[in-house]
Amino acid sequence: MSAITNHAEALQQAIRESEEFQALQAAYQQVMDDPSSKQMFDNFRSVQIELQQKQMQGIEITEEEIEQAKKVVELVQQHEGISNLMTQEQNVNNLINELSQIITKPLEELYQM
Amino acid sequence: MSAITNHAEALQQAIRESEEFQALQAAYQQVMDDPSSKQMFDNFRSVQIELQQKQMQGIEITEEEIEQAKKVVELVQQHEGISNLMTQEQNVNNLINELSQIITKPLEELYQM
Repeated sequence: MSAITNHAEALQQAIRESEEFQALQAAYQQVMDDPSSKQMFDNFRSVQIELQQKQMQGIEITEEEIEQAKKVVELVQQHEGISNLMTQEQNVNNLINELSQIITKPLEELYQM
Repeated sequence: MSAITNHAEALQQAIRESEEFQALQAAYQQVMDDPSSKQMFDNFRSVQIELQQKQMQGIEITEEEIEQAKKVVELVQQHEGISNLMTQEQNVNNLINELSQIITKPLEELYQM
């Protein structure tokens, strides 16, 4: 394994052990452990993925689909467990973005020369 | 500085010292050191950025603009220095993508549970 891969693996391990990731894991487990929460979350995910795929394929999203998606989001936001899961997801995404900025700094600096 | 930031900084340093980044830096410097190469590259960049911004803002890109962009790409591909720079850019992008996959593996694993 190269030195650079070793450093990436070390960072992966640090993410795994981070407060942010641990909290996400716990929030995800809590939702998955409750069948009704799990079903609501799965439904939310599949609506999200369906709309994203349509968007990427350039298929027009109807007013009705937008309304349906809004309702699903409102529903999950009112659900304490799923709303917590979404907060923890956002925290981990923020962490990953911060780390990405550190990692890609050499590129940024190069093009600012 | 937190442990996780330390790991990200170590990875940043490893990228900086990598063969791929060193080669990109050299290729970039070579283009920048020659005024006519630099001008051709700057022109290519500004056409790229302009089209990307239009795309993001949902502004329609005309046939004429597409033709112009194709010509600029053909021109820079024939230029040895810029063509080399684009190859080195691709190599560094591939490296960063590989590293991103390692780093975000905990997330991928979580959602496959």
